[in-house]
Amino acid sequence: MSKIFRTDRELRFGDCDISGTAYFPAYLNILNGVNEEYWAHIGYPWHDIIWNERWGTPTVHLSCDFSKPSFFGETLSFELGVVKIGKSSLTIRHRISCGPQMRWKSTQVLAASDLDKHTSVAWPDEVARTLQEWLSTEDELGF
Amino acid sequence: MSKIFRTDRELRFGDCDISGTAYFPAYLNILNGVNEEYWAHIGYPWHDIIWNERWGTPTVHLSCDFSKPSFFGETLSFELGVVKIGKSSLTIRHRISCGPQMRWKSTQVLAASDLDKHTSVAWPDEVARTLQEWLSTEDELGF
Amino acid sequence: MSKIFRTDRELRFGDCDISGTAYFPAYLNILNGVNEEYWAHIGYPWHDIIWNERWGTPTVHLSCDFSKPSFFGETLSFELGVVKIGKSSLTIRHRISCGPQMRWKSTQVLAASDLDKHTSVAWPDEVARTLQEWLSTEDELGF
Amino acid sequence: MSKIFRTDRELRFGDCDISGTAYFPAYLNILNGVNEEYWAHIGYPWHDIIWNERWGTPTVHLSCDFSKPSFFGETLSFELGVVKIGKSSLTIRHRISCGPQMRWKSTQVLAASDLDKHTSVAWPDEVARTLQEWLSTEDELGF
Repeated sequence: MSKIFRTDRELRFGDCDISGTAYFPAYLNILNGVNEEYWAHIGYPWHDIIWNERWGTPTVHLSCDFSKPSFFGETLSFELGVVKIGKSSLTIRHRISCGPQMRWKSTQVLAASDLDKHTSVAWPDEVARTLQEWLSTEDELGF
Repeated sequence: MSKIFRTDRELRFGDCDISGTAYFPAYLNILNGVNEEYWAHIGYPWHDIIWNERWGTPTVHLSCDFSKPSFFGETLSFELGVVKIGKSSLTIRHRISCGPQMRWKSTQVLAASDLDKHTSVAWPDEVARTLQEWLSTEDELGF
Repeated sequence: MSKIFRTDRELRFGDCDISGTAYFPAYLNILNGVNEEYWAHIGYPWHDIIWNERWGTPTVHLSCDFSKPSFFGETLSFELGVVKIGKSSLTIRHRISCGPQMRWKSTQVLAASDLDKHTSVAWPDEVARTLQEWLSTEDELGF
Repeated sequence: MSKIFRTDRELRFGDCDISGTAYFPAYLNILNGVNEEYWAHIGYPWHDIIWNERWGTPTVHLSCDFSKPSFFGETLSFELGVVKIGKSSLTIRHRISCGPQMRWKSTQVLAASDLDKHTSVAWPDEVARTLQEWLSTEDELGF
């Protein structure tokens, strides 16, 4: 099994600013949608866990390096890898490219959290086991 | 002169997600607006430099730690300090609080950039001089 | 008492698209914030009624005419008037100008709604009485 | 040829508000992306015409009726039809459903516009001919 989750996004009109390139908060809205797609892919769609189990995965840390601008109309490839799993946290890496050119990278820490009490909770066992199958070393991941 | 720029923002309905707390991309849209207000405050409104001089300050690095959630309806205090000035880059720190409670922190690197060529340019001398007046050590800043 | 609620908004970088003018969904995010400010002004902040009473005011109809573009950096004046109050609905008008120039107009219908059941509810008596004080004929309003 | 353009969108976390249903400005950002996809489908991707020909299609009128709420995680079907073509304007209708249930409808008028002068321009002949192939009566369209 490939341990990298891949999906594409077209950079749309509404994602771009006056310079014709991605507005960085719009980039992060797209990134959040990619994470959402990943969680559905591994069997835990956010809408299921939020509606039915009342927990979510808010972001507690985010670090991004934007190397090169991305332009309105380009199709971007998102790669997502898991590099660390804590009792209630998850560290993921993203690499975003357009064709052969790397555009930006991100490291993000999510925390399992009770949606009503806003306190962290441990990953359910089944979720933890699934995430373990995605765990890569940074060397394996390559970004 | 205080070397910390301060401004408040109310967390509005449209900034919050299903949990009733700030959606992090909306947080960054607010942060960008705070930066925009800072640049107007020091005499270089983005709309002036973008419309008339065709340069801007895209983000090349961003790092955020979200310690505690912020809730719909709260008023947040943003503090902005300058910690490093390069030939064409600027490193700023933000601390965001609600009353006495710190909510999140950010380090952001902006780069002066030609709006049409999308290449970095040196800060105009006058801009560099103005930014120097805001420069703090991390100790002075305290965040 | 003036029956028109007035507030200003600067058109920020994040509200504008590649043409340098307001992106219309951003316009409507701003409009929603203006409505939110109006409800706080009349004594019913949305965060209070949503957090404490579990009802809200979703939009059931919206009609906008965008006559002239608004440019990044401009300050826009929003005027809001109430033209009709139903058992659980409210029809408001907006006129948005920059200096003497009208930029766009909107008619919006809000409906009091149970936040959990997503069904319409009658305005609480006290809310209905307050809204009545704001009611104008279209002639009085002038837009 | 079917004269109705159809595409689906999942309602994502970032599109929803504290009630767990679509935030209406987010709905309109999605609608704009649907329009963008339609223009690419008929051979005139916005990024091509904006980057290469310097014209765009800003919205001059928008009218929406939101009949029923849409919930986080639902997949929505968008239908788009063309009901009127002017010298420099285009009237389109949208019907948005989830399975058999209609959720909202929209009528939107776009105007061909010079991106730099912000004045309306006539549709290029080839564009006008293509749009004519999509023209329906309201009866044919059925919404």
